[in-house]
Amino acid sequence: MLNVPPKDNKTDPLVLFMPSGKRGRFPVGTPILDAARSLGVYVESVCGGRATCGRCQVSVQEGNFAKHKIVSSNDHISSVGPKEQRYASVRELPDGRRLSCSAQILGDLVIDVPQDTVINAQVVRKAASDRVIERNAAVQMCYVEVDEPDMHKPLGDLDRMKAVLEKDWGWKDLLIAPHLIPQVQGILRKGSWAVTAAIHRDMDSSRPFIVGLWPGLKNEAYGIACDIGSTTIAMHLVSLLSGRIVASSGASNPQIRFGEDLMSRVSYVMMNPDGREAMTKAVREAVNGLIGKVCAEGGIDRHDILDMVVVGNPIMHHLFLGIDPTELGQAPFALAVSGALQYWAHEIDIEVNRGARLYMLPCIAGHVGADAAGATLSEGPHRQDKMMLLVDVGTNAEIVLGNRERVVAASSPTGPAFEGAEISSGQRAAPGAIERVRIDPDTLEPRFRVIGVDKWSDEEGFAEAAAAVGVTGICGSAIIEVVAEMYLTGIISQDGVVDGGMAAKSPRIVPNGRTFSYLLHDGDQRITVTQNDIRAIQLAKAALYAGIKLLMEKQSVDHVDMIRFAGAFGSFIDPKYAMVLGLIPDCDLAEVKAVGNAAGTGALMALLNRGHRREIEETVRKIEKIETALESKFQEHFVNAMAMPNKVDAFPKLAEVVALPERKVLTDEGGEGGGRRRRRSRE
Amino acid sequence: MLNVPPKDNKTDPLVLFMPSGKRGRFPVGTPILDAARSLGVYVESVCGGRATCGRCQVSVQEGNFAKHKIVSSNDHISSVGPKEQRYASVRELPDGRRLSCSAQILGDLVIDVPQDTVINAQVVRKAASDRVIERNAAVQMCYVEVDEPDMHKPLGDLDRMKAVLEKDWGWKDLLIAPHLIPQVQGILRKGSWAVTAAIHRDMDSSRPFIVGLWPGLKNEAYGIACDIGSTTIAMHLVSLLSGRIVASSGASNPQIRFGEDLMSRVSYVMMNPDGREAMTKAVREAVNGLIGKVCAEGGIDRHDILDMVVVGNPIMHHLFLGIDPTELGQAPFALAVSGALQYWAHEIDIEVNRGARLYMLPCIAGHVGADAAGATLSEGPHRQDKMMLLVDVGTNAEIVLGNRERVVAASSPTGPAFEGAEISSGQRAAPGAIERVRIDPDTLEPRFRVIGVDKWSDEEGFAEAAAAVGVTGICGSAIIEVVAEMYLTGIISQDGVVDGGMAAKSPRIVPNGRTFSYLLHDGDQRITVTQNDIRAIQLAKAALYAGIKLLMEKQSVDHVDMIRFAGAFGSFIDPKYAMVLGLIPDCDLAEVKAVGNAAGTGALMALLNRGHRREIEETVRKIEKIETALESKFQEHFVNAMAMPNKVDAFPKLAEVVALPERKVLTDEGGEGGGRRRRRSRE
Repeated sequence: MLNVPPKDNKTDPLVLFMPSGKRGRFPVGTPILDAARSLGVYVESVCGGRATCGRCQVSVQEGNFAKHKIVSSNDHISSVGPKEQRYASVRELPDGRRLSCSAQILGDLVIDVPQDTVINAQVVRKAASDRVIERNAAVQMCYVEVDEPDMHKPLGDLDRMKAVLEKDWGWKDLLIAPHLIPQVQGILRKGSWAVTAAIHRDMDSSRPFIVGLWPGLKNEAYGIACDIGSTTIAMHLVSLLSGRIVASSGASNPQIRFGEDLMSRVSYVMMNPDGREAMTKAVREAVNGLIGKVCAEGGIDRHDILDMVVVGNPIMHHLFLGIDPTELGQAPFALAVSGALQYWAHEIDIEVNRGARLYMLPCIAGHVGADAAGATLSEGPHRQDKMMLLVDVGTNAEIVLGNRERVVAASSPTGPAFEGAEISSGQRAAPGAIERVRIDPDTLEPRFRVIGVDKWSDEEGFAEAAAAVGVTGICGSAIIEVVAEMYLTGIISQDGVVDGGMAAKSPRIVPNGRTFSYLLHDGDQRITVTQNDIRAIQLAKAALYAGIKLLMEKQSVDHVDMIRFAGAFGSFIDPKYAMVLGLIPDCDLAEVKAVGNAAGTGALMALLNRGHRREIEETVRKIEKIETALESKFQEHFVNAMAMPNKVDAFPKLAEVVALPERKVLTDEGGEGGGRRRRRSRE
Repeated sequence: MLNVPPKDNKTDPLVLFMPSGKRGRFPVGTPILDAARSLGVYVESVCGGRATCGRCQVSVQEGNFAKHKIVSSNDHISSVGPKEQRYASVRELPDGRRLSCSAQILGDLVIDVPQDTVINAQVVRKAASDRVIERNAAVQMCYVEVDEPDMHKPLGDLDRMKAVLEKDWGWKDLLIAPHLIPQVQGILRKGSWAVTAAIHRDMDSSRPFIVGLWPGLKNEAYGIACDIGSTTIAMHLVSLLSGRIVASSGASNPQIRFGEDLMSRVSYVMMNPDGREAMTKAVREAVNGLIGKVCAEGGIDRHDILDMVVVGNPIMHHLFLGIDPTELGQAPFALAVSGALQYWAHEIDIEVNRGARLYMLPCIAGHVGADAAGATLSEGPHRQDKMMLLVDVGTNAEIVLGNRERVVAASSPTGPAFEGAEISSGQRAAPGAIERVRIDPDTLEPRFRVIGVDKWSDEEGFAEAAAAVGVTGICGSAIIEVVAEMYLTGIISQDGVVDGGMAAKSPRIVPNGRTFSYLLHDGDQRITVTQNDIRAIQLAKAALYAGIKLLMEKQSVDHVDMIRFAGAFGSFIDPKYAMVLGLIPDCDLAEVKAVGNAAGTGALMALLNRGHRREIEETVRKIEKIETALESKFQEHFVNAMAMPNKVDAFPKLAEVVALPERKVLTDEGGEGGGRRRRRSRE
């Protein structure tokens, strides 16, 4: 592959590549592909400039390029030659597209390199701005024509193939996946000495590897990005050659049958001699099943999958790799392995191409896993000047705080309250679950929305529409909203006590033993928010906030510039209510965003661009890990964070947009009085 | 591991290491091990200087070292300290041996580094001079004490282990065999954070690999060197830590049931859809069985085998690796792969340690395999100034000719005559087979020796002794001798015709149709040498000689300085008779040696010293491969080589020690007349 060095000669044509903005001058007649390569602009090519694969397509901009100060015209690029004509007649070449291996530079040009991978943050309310992943996949497909055997030079078939892969593509010191060695002979003959080799150039060995081999031109290669969550396994199937997301899907983690949450799965391993093996088998089977699903959806053969990137929390990470997670269930929460790992996918029993590789992102700490590393890679606190807080809330909240200078991370034991467990009317997000709540500050009457119903509860026709699904409980996002609304309307005090005095004002405030509850809905099921529910939410949010506060202290900052909520929980809650309850510190609400499955997005980035692998390995090495259990101030922060925020204390930005109540302290028993603070010892 | 650089300071003690002869000056107090390392003298050490493994033992010479111009005395080395005393009390420390990690340099010293690997060429008559293989095995055992988990620095167990392997042993960028990843956690805890890692530092990836892991101190590691012959599989089991050959053994290649010789095995593959698979399975099972045998003999666990080196001819090489050998059965004799290969042994179904590696030597050409590469490595024409001829005779003769400047190689189609096939009374070397023959030049009466009988046939008591085994046939070595003796005594002419005129002189010359035979033995079985037998030997020897002659022409030499006969055939024949018959060119007989299984010795060298792997890879790349089928002169040489040598033509050195007959030409029919030369076309 020719690499033409950029010339200093000011009379040579100037070529600008978008979206990277890289530019250089090249002699008239230089193929655009060569120009791109010499500038480090990644343009795919499988056929090696034979104009048969069509992977090197670019768009040549026409019209007004005043902003680039370059004017392009048809005179500036070679006309469509016979090779391109042949390609266009056999396959599709959209208008304005050219094959960069054939089109030559004749004058100044602006070239658009198509980038098909766009991350759409999967949020409900706010569409995060689309981002493009620059492509530089670990696998490259290389078509070659191999010399036939020659008795005068009795090099083996494989050895001659390696030689031409070096000559045509520059691969030095090539190795080959052992399973291919007996196949080389037959594939070369089947392809009449023309073959396509899949070269993996991100092997941990650092030498490039032939991982796949096909007779003739093989113009496809796919990858899998997978996030193994405790509850859900999420997966993207992507073309490694175009970057296009072919299919995305999810499936339940079948380990749930061994235990709902992480700690119960660890217990299962401790109690059952075959427990680890059974759970490893279950999750690997689920991943295989999900691969089948996305492949069927995308209409591709699973044996065309050549690369995989997997993330997961430490316990999922260990179980997937067949490592006993018991140590993670008790101090010192020792990871068996923390660094990034590479495998042949078949070594983990993943059924894809026999030469496919599998890359596991590194774990940050015993409770801050490869999923947090994926989210970090996706959101990139380490790429920002601003101080970014990245939170992924589950049974443990994984918290990352930092900027270009320094990143710190910790986990907080929030418990399962945010997921609807420990809440009297809590349930999973499913049809029938209340997902939004508003309370009228004057009447204390609620209005709400139910998943599966298109109207608010006070809108006409709600009852009819709701009859189909029922109103069955409160999901995680609504729990945050209802408690926050109760606080904003004065139903609960800053210390979280339901004001029994309000019972006189509204029939919604109902006695419940020695405390009071709020009656949210009185239908087939009576849905109330009890004092205990509020306490559970307070404990969870105090744990989260205490962890964040600890990291802010480590960073010596008293505010954060941006907040990113990762994960399913973060996708559904309203950041405003999260802040009203004090889950997260005060911040400009415009800078608080839900980013969906950021862990999965990070996996996708590492799949499509091997540079991101080095980036996250380096970042994780540098992240300072804080173990909350060892920090004496964590307990203090935890206790202080039990109360709700007020505008005086620490939430001036929130106070600008939300009318926070004045300080009003009640006893647990519902009367006004000195606030009593609860402690929860951390087991 | 401290590496103390040699000092220029002339007052520092001078230390000389034997047998390498490397020397340097070191400050007083330097441990001998550090001095050795800094000079590149390979001294094993597993425990990392803790004086527990005993692998770093050296001998300190005492007495008169005038030839080294160094005088050593007890004052020049530190006295035995508590660590060495402890070691000596627990384990054996022979007199005069010191632990080089503990013994310090106090003055000038001569240090003997024990080299336990001695190659005994397996010859019958002449013991080749013992050679020592300098040890530098691919696997190094490294004992480390790993930091316990620390919540403040939540690095994984594996990651902390790698860190200490880098700190204590200097291993950078360590990788680990995937099967070990789930085991690290348990092994570390079982060893109370002290473990021994087996590091393979000759992975094709060029990064060092953790291939084995044991709790505590693991002070053993073994390797297998294996030569897969068409008939016999030969194997050495060696300690990688001491170089000691623990056991050597051989077994029949069970592929024989698919076909006696190589080409019939290729035919079997072509005719049977599962033929390749069946033969691959058979040979792998045989190798596994033989490993079991040498391990039982040596009393070691096969799971302590961590490295393997395998050689074999191209067809054995391909079948062992699961590659279809069909292409090797027809022009252009294309090897599927010629370069050296590395595998995990389990990928080839070899049952040893799961982390064991398997290294295959490169093949030279389609008929000159990894066995010839092994023999080349062992005998080292490329290390000589003199012109060395290396011959391994089988169904094909593999011929290597060269010196430091240039090496050429070819194969010649000798056919199976030398192995006793195609010979009327031919048989394998086994009890009852005639193995030596002498013919009285006056009476033409023979005397001979039989395998399993301790007397010559003309000695007293022979008949009684021979009765036990019988006299059943002629083995390969005796065929050469009897034909050569027939030539020397004038029974056959230079053109190989049995002189019917001799029948008058001796009843041993008997008519046989239109030709005559020589009656060697008339017992239960009548053993004769027929005119056809002689023709078969002539065809075989002419093919061999023609190949050699071709290579001599390529090298532009008219004589060779040294001849090495490798393989079983070479081990049993008498070089003098081989030369009388003209199998090999004229050469000083003192420089003609049988070297036994040189291919296996080459495998052993590559096993014990990874430097030899690079050496043979480089050598094979440089060897010029000559395909006899493409050389027009081969046919001419072949025809010319049918006759027996005479002193006038080309065998002056032989003629000095053997009375070669005058030229005497007979017809095939037994009468004197014009010699007729036969041609054999090469299929």
